[in-house]
Amino acid sequence: MLKRTIWWEDGRIGLIDQTLLPERYEQVVCSDVPRLIRAIQRLEVRGAPALGVAGAYGVALACCNALEGQVDLFYSTVLRDGALIRSARPTAVNLAWGVDRVLSAVMETADPKAATELAVSLAESIADEDEMTCRRIGSYGAPLLPDGCTVLTHCNAGALACASWGTALGVIRSAVLEGKHIRVISCETRPLLQGARLTAWELHEDGIPITTIIDSEAAYLMQKREIDCVIVGADRICCDGVFNKIGTYMHAVCAAHHQIPFYVAAPKSTFDPYSRMADVVVEERERDEVAMFSGRKTVPDGVPVRNYAFDATPLSLVTAIITEEGLIRPPYHHPWLMP
Amino acid sequence: MLKRTIWWEDGRIGLIDQTLLPERYEQVVCSDVPRLIRAIQRLEVRGAPALGVAGAYGVALACCNALEGQVDLFYSTVLRDGALIRSARPTAVNLAWGVDRVLSAVMETADPKAATELAVSLAESIADEDEMTCRRIGSYGAPLLPDGCTVLTHCNAGALACASWGTALGVIRSAVLEGKHIRVISCETRPLLQGARLTAWELHEDGIPITTIIDSEAAYLMQKREIDCVIVGADRICCDGVFNKIGTYMHAVCAAHHQIPFYVAAPKSTFDPYSRMADVVVEERERDEVAMFSGRKTVPDGVPVRNYAFDATPLSLVTAIITEEGLIRPPYHHPWLMP
Repeated sequence: MLKRTIWWEDGRIGLIDQTLLPERYEQVVCSDVPRLIRAIQRLEVRGAPALGVAGAYGVALACCNALEGQVDLFYSTVLRDGALIRSARPTAVNLAWGVDRVLSAVMETADPKAATELAVSLAESIADEDEMTCRRIGSYGAPLLPDGCTVLTHCNAGALACASWGTALGVIRSAVLEGKHIRVISCETRPLLQGARLTAWELHEDGIPITTIIDSEAAYLMQKREIDCVIVGADRICCDGVFNKIGTYMHAVCAAHHQIPFYVAAPKSTFDPYSRMADVVVEERERDEVAMFSGRKTVPDGVPVRNYAFDATPLSLVTAIITEEGLIRPPYHHPWLMP
Repeated sequence: MLKRTIWWEDGRIGLIDQTLLPERYEQVVCSDVPRLIRAIQRLEVRGAPALGVAGAYGVALACCNALEGQVDLFYSTVLRDGALIRSARPTAVNLAWGVDRVLSAVMETADPKAATELAVSLAESIADEDEMTCRRIGSYGAPLLPDGCTVLTHCNAGALACASWGTALGVIRSAVLEGKHIRVISCETRPLLQGARLTAWELHEDGIPITTIIDSEAAYLMQKREIDCVIVGADRICCDGVFNKIGTYMHAVCAAHHQIPFYVAAPKSTFDPYSRMADVVVEERERDEVAMFSGRKTVPDGVPVRNYAFDATPLSLVTAIITEEGLIRPPYHHPWLMP
């Protein structure tokens, strides 16, 4: 079992470089905010809850470095760095949540040194809290998985997407911990293959039976009655829909067609009831994520690529949302979903 | 415009090696049946109609080579070679159709030399016929595409999948020939990326506007009303459903959910009314097609992969089948669909 995906280490941020798995397991140390931002944008660290922790640690890092500069510029430097981290990726709401939570505490503390100590301890507690939250999501979700069932998941909403344990994969881990036999089908998740590379890696390390398929095979396995339910994570839950990795919506439509339950596992920090699906900016990423692979050209020169990182699934297609405070079910009249 | 995908040349079979596109355009010459079978299994030549032509040329090639061996073994050698070619891939019915059409003519001709000449001329006429068939499919299908529409396609049912012109892409080419402005969205089609590599290549060469997406993004573009219809080819049309490249079924389910027309374009040789969906053997291909890419490992060692080459779409999800003799529509009481 993976200990931590992202951690604090002597005034710097340590993380696992997730772009190299499963071929290589390497740790990265971020000593300044630009390096952290690069790690976020290159997806060395990714996954909504982990981005929340990265945002929190990022403000702590900004404080540590600002403390070594001109003290009269401390607060303006930290504010600017916080804004830069906050906007490193636009769609996941947890990144902004993690930044804001630490930043507001910093701004309310008059002494830079005290503010920095507070930032570090608050970020550490956010990371610890993330693990507790995932374990609670797991406990609430585990009863939804019958013994012997096969669960489809997309992308990686696992330990690697959080500080530890995972949201969607946390539910699976909790069910396995209760003694249930669970088989997992992991969609490879194009273009960056987080399902094949990360989900398969972490569940295989844990000894949970896992099979990988291409994303477009899921519907056919549903037709063949080889999938009992779907569980995914979320990058942002609006009042009317769930943003998650591109491909999630397709699974939701196909699950509904086959009358298979479709669950979303996510902490409260993912909820953003003030947005509607139609208002959220969906990150479009660079062409070469799709058009090149390992140095090989897969799309002819001159042919454009649309590369949305996320899609939106209306709540009408979601059977239940699994949170650290319990299940949220249709008709979704829940305070977390009310602006 | 591509001239021919597969052709006859001095007693041998010439073909474009489709595994190398779009990086390199290279021709392959098959001088014997084992080399042709390798070309079929490695997908150097692929696509249902092109496999029909390959099957026909394959029997001609078997005849030419058998003629140089022991004449008393001519018919048994050709029969054995025909059976080997026939079973090179199990799902596409056209391969068997092409083999059988030439083989039965050979068996009915008493003189080996005359039989060989007949085999060659029959195979040549099957290739010519394939182009005429595609053009007729195109003419019947073009009226289904409104001027200015955006068409989604999956895999490659184009000139590269046929002797020339194409089935699904033939419909698009015919509509463009009539002066319509058509935009095409090509799903990359994991695992072997025939959509990104081949469909994007051949339409871009023709100057038809084409955009590539990952397979799992199609449903989201449907939600955003950016797709007006779907056209795909077919590898086998049974009495109750259509076998085509894995991923086709997912598009059909999502098209139905969004009330978008879903068309299948295929010649009569693809129809197999004596089979039902449940009876057809779906080819499962090797793990490394999914688990390795360009020498890079994408799935951890020890994690199994399910790699179906095709899936099955029930006729209830198909808006119309476009053939060389016109459209076939629900409720699909058509002689070609009746055992």
